[in-house]
Amino acid sequence: MPQTDIDWTTAEKDLAQAAFKKAYHREVAALVDDVKTKVEAISGLDELWQLHDYLSARRHDIDGKYDYRDSMFLFAFSQLIKEGWLSLEELDGLHPNKQKKVAALARM
Amino acid sequence: MPQTDIDWTTAEKDLAQAAFKKAYHREVAALVDDVKTKVEAISGLDELWQLHDYLSARRHDIDGKYDYRDSMFLFAFSQLIKEGWLSLEELDGLHPNKQKKVAALARM
Repeated sequence: MPQTDIDWTTAEKDLAQAAFKKAYHREVAALVDDVKTKVEAISGLDELWQLHDYLSARRHDIDGKYDYRDSMFLFAFSQLIKEGWLSLEELDGLHPNKQKKVAALARM
Repeated sequence: MPQTDIDWTTAEKDLAQAAFKKAYHREVAALVDDVKTKVEAISGLDELWQLHDYLSARRHDIDGKYDYRDSMFLFAFSQLIKEGWLSLEELDGLHPNKQKKVAALARM
């Protein structure tokens, strides 16, 4: 039976994927709302290019953050928890060692 | 007195700058409206990144198009006329040779 943060059971993988999707949908929904609010206030080109810069940064960030490789799960989760898109409780079901590691990384 | 499309009188330069600004403000206003309409329909990340791609393309286009160097005026005007941001009549006051050249370039 896997005890470490390297080995993942099928159940853990399913839980991890589900938690990832949850965080992803929350972050995307918040971003879409945010963009809609920002766009309302735009009247000129400088503000439009500010929105463009903002989208470039968010796209880069989101593309990099949702890394579905098993080896990256713990780092990805700790970041999502730091940013408020996921709670530690939503990882209940992972091996306690993994949960502890995520919690420690999220405090860094 | 300048007769060619290379020499520009002060009056011609003023008229060109004013025409440029007019086209610029029209295009920017239309773009801002366009983005506001597009954003209303966005519900997910794919659509948001489509908007980002669209803004990247428009930014590149607009940054290149409004070239305020005298030597580029005629080319820039012909493009703005092609795209509907300026009318040939709004260049009344330029030397007829210049107007003819812009008209010919706009038909290309």
